[in-house]
Amino acid sequence: MINKVLIANRGEIAVRIIRACRELDIETVAVYSEPDRESLHVVMADEAYCIGPSTATESYLKKTNIIATALKTGCDAIHPGYGFLAENAEFAEICEDHGLIFIGPSPSAINRMGDKSQARDTMKAAGVPIVPGSDGLIEREDEAIEIAKDIGYPVIIKATAGGGGKGMRVAQNRDELVRSIQTARREAESNFGNAGIYLEKFIEEPRHIEIQIVGDRYGDVVHFGERDCSIQRRHQKLIEEAPSPALNETIREEMGQAAIAAAKAVEYCGAGTVEFLLDKHKNFYFMEMNTRIQVEHPVTEEITGVDLIKEQVLVANKQPLSVKQEEVVVRGHAIECRINAENARKGFRPSPGKISMCVPPGGPGVRVDSAAYTGYTITPFYDSMVAKLIVHASTRDEAIARMKRALSEFVIEGVDTTVPFHLNLMDHDVFKSGEFDTSFLEKYTV
Amino acid sequence: MINKVLIANRGEIAVRIIRACRELDIETVAVYSEPDRESLHVVMADEAYCIGPSTATESYLKKTNIIATALKTGCDAIHPGYGFLAENAEFAEICEDHGLIFIGPSPSAINRMGDKSQARDTMKAAGVPIVPGSDGLIEREDEAIEIAKDIGYPVIIKATAGGGGKGMRVAQNRDELVRSIQTARREAESNFGNAGIYLEKFIEEPRHIEIQIVGDRYGDVVHFGERDCSIQRRHQKLIEEAPSPALNETIREEMGQAAIAAAKAVEYCGAGTVEFLLDKHKNFYFMEMNTRIQVEHPVTEEITGVDLIKEQVLVANKQPLSVKQEEVVVRGHAIECRINAENARKGFRPSPGKISMCVPPGGPGVRVDSAAYTGYTITPFYDSMVAKLIVHASTRDEAIARMKRALSEFVIEGVDTTVPFHLNLMDHDVFKSGEFDTSFLEKYTV
Repeated sequence: MINKVLIANRGEIAVRIIRACRELDIETVAVYSEPDRESLHVVMADEAYCIGPSTATESYLKKTNIIATALKTGCDAIHPGYGFLAENAEFAEICEDHGLIFIGPSPSAINRMGDKSQARDTMKAAGVPIVPGSDGLIEREDEAIEIAKDIGYPVIIKATAGGGGKGMRVAQNRDELVRSIQTARREAESNFGNAGIYLEKFIEEPRHIEIQIVGDRYGDVVHFGERDCSIQRRHQKLIEEAPSPALNETIREEMGQAAIAAAKAVEYCGAGTVEFLLDKHKNFYFMEMNTRIQVEHPVTEEITGVDLIKEQVLVANKQPLSVKQEEVVVRGHAIECRINAENARKGFRPSPGKISMCVPPGGPGVRVDSAAYTGYTITPFYDSMVAKLIVHASTRDEAIARMKRALSEFVIEGVDTTVPFHLNLMDHDVFKSGEFDTSFLEKYTV
Repeated sequence: MINKVLIANRGEIAVRIIRACRELDIETVAVYSEPDRESLHVVMADEAYCIGPSTATESYLKKTNIIATALKTGCDAIHPGYGFLAENAEFAEICEDHGLIFIGPSPSAINRMGDKSQARDTMKAAGVPIVPGSDGLIEREDEAIEIAKDIGYPVIIKATAGGGGKGMRVAQNRDELVRSIQTARREAESNFGNAGIYLEKFIEEPRHIEIQIVGDRYGDVVHFGERDCSIQRRHQKLIEEAPSPALNETIREEMGQAAIAAAKAVEYCGAGTVEFLLDKHKNFYFMEMNTRIQVEHPVTEEITGVDLIKEQVLVANKQPLSVKQEEVVVRGHAIECRINAENARKGFRPSPGKISMCVPPGGPGVRVDSAAYTGYTITPFYDSMVAKLIVHASTRDEAIARMKRALSEFVIEGVDTTVPFHLNLMDHDVFKSGEFDTSFLEKYTV
């Protein structure tokens, strides 16, 4: 039975996990780096310990310090949040070795999905649609040329150890492919310590649609519908919404079933997300699986009424899922804007500094997940997220109107934020139409 | 068509109405008294005008100033909020006379429900269960004695112009009744300018359960389920929740139908609440109808997903209701705590002053309706409400845990608040059991 959880993270997700634990009557231990001493997660947790300096490798990624703190404080579980150690199979194993429950999937599931080429093979075997491409890794140039000829250009070269948009190169023709292969391999080696690359048909102007799933130890996997995360800048999601304006009930159901099959193929236990690309003809293809809770999980919570962090704790605690598939009912529409301390007019340049005044919006259908408060200083050491602003309303149009209203209420003084960017985006006709793909921000000026 | 609304109110309800109007793309005009110049509704509205000094009769109740401001600024409607002019039939008429839409029911409906003895008669005729008592007003002492003998003691003497718990006296026997009649009449005359009184059987240890309804101009009335407001102190509600732990589906449906019949009996158009008493044997009786939006409307919004303020604007705009009865589906459980600037340990003594720090709670299922912010000064002139804290969760137990979590996060420095009181209440076994009545706070120390 989980009684005390160490949260190996910072910022809003650490706060989010503390909130779930408190509602479950579970004690919490925060860890923090030196510059994070005044952070909200430090204030809110039952106990808090400094584990190192600003450099993440010396603090939030420092496995030994985190495990030692968990053991010293009598924790029985560790929640890794997202980022940092969340998809680190070795860390999950070390937790197990020390008798600590890792609130996440098994090391084997993390590994099998973490290697992108292997994940492709697993998905293919499980009958989940994958993008046409190489079977496994590409060893030789002529092999790549042959496959590309077969599936047709453009193609994309991906690092098997990459993910989240990192380690990818598009080739429009044979010359570009030949040139890219060696570069891609070198980049993969230097960035991920693994030179393995593979090839896929490049899906042009796709939508990014992902399915939230949770699995338990008894082999049950439930999906909680999709999120549309097509509004991205350099593969970084800026806005997420649910349901997707691009799906109909048939595709939704097919995608949900594909996600469940994907999770079952690796005996997945915990919360995870199966990411798909949806092409212009409404064909969808497995892209990757994120074996952790995601930044954008709140939009799913809003439309389904299910607390996903609690569900994570529940299944980690060896309990069965709290809901059956048929009990998952979607109500209304939710949108999340990631409010960052960045100046969108200046190429999204980070704007760290002290927040001299912070008044979050309120009222009906407005949720704020944030670690910011009046007087809090955003340091330059980590990501620049100030808050996730989530709205829920009966329709997509009402949700957009509500988001505009909430954005216009949000007072954050002392740093630049992306609030004005999001306000413009909510007013953009193409965004409002719901007909866009991941190239939206390349095509249009917001 | 409503394009611009004057909000004849202050505090959180003025902010709530601005939010709804903004989402509907309707311009807003705020009015304020001199000490309210720094208020959030003044900052948030598109325009704001000072209409008088602190004394409400010279500002928020000053009909001429409010109407003049509405006309001067080109408003086409006035929203009265709750309190002040919300149930003032004369004001509703003056609005009409000036071509302004009063966002509320007709003057006739306000009058017919405002006179409590007349409302009793109307309800009786409409087949709505009423508490046994006098037919109309009581003129003579012997008449009262006769009726009391008939229905049995204890009885309650009520002022026909009273309401909301004001102007009531309980008599346990004939002697007390005789003594009370003259006093009650004098008090009614001096408090309400109307000496009319009537008699009812006193329902002992009832629950206070009310049904939210909205009617449109086309004769449709929809009910949005019940709210349980049994946790009261001196007839002032402190906590409201929905659904009520005391109802089953049968009583819920009967009460809903009774509320619709009550509204239809006065051709009700707008949002309103039919209040009932539920006795120990689960019999319910009409108590009164509030012909306005209520403080506790958010709990209903949370469980039904319907924006009641928008619905008010819609039907005032001569549009039909946006939902049909069969589309009203309840999800989960919601609780509201009224956070007041009062010291519960000192008899709920008001604690006006400057809020030196205000950090509202956030995260899943938490809604804050408030006009407070860091640096805001609560004046002694009006009510002492700081915020309405509303939580929504899948079950009552989860909602209670969530409310405790949210209360414990709420930072309000500089004034005393009822946050500690509510925290204790959430931990009280009798409250947690769901088995309590309006005498809860007389019986138990929180």
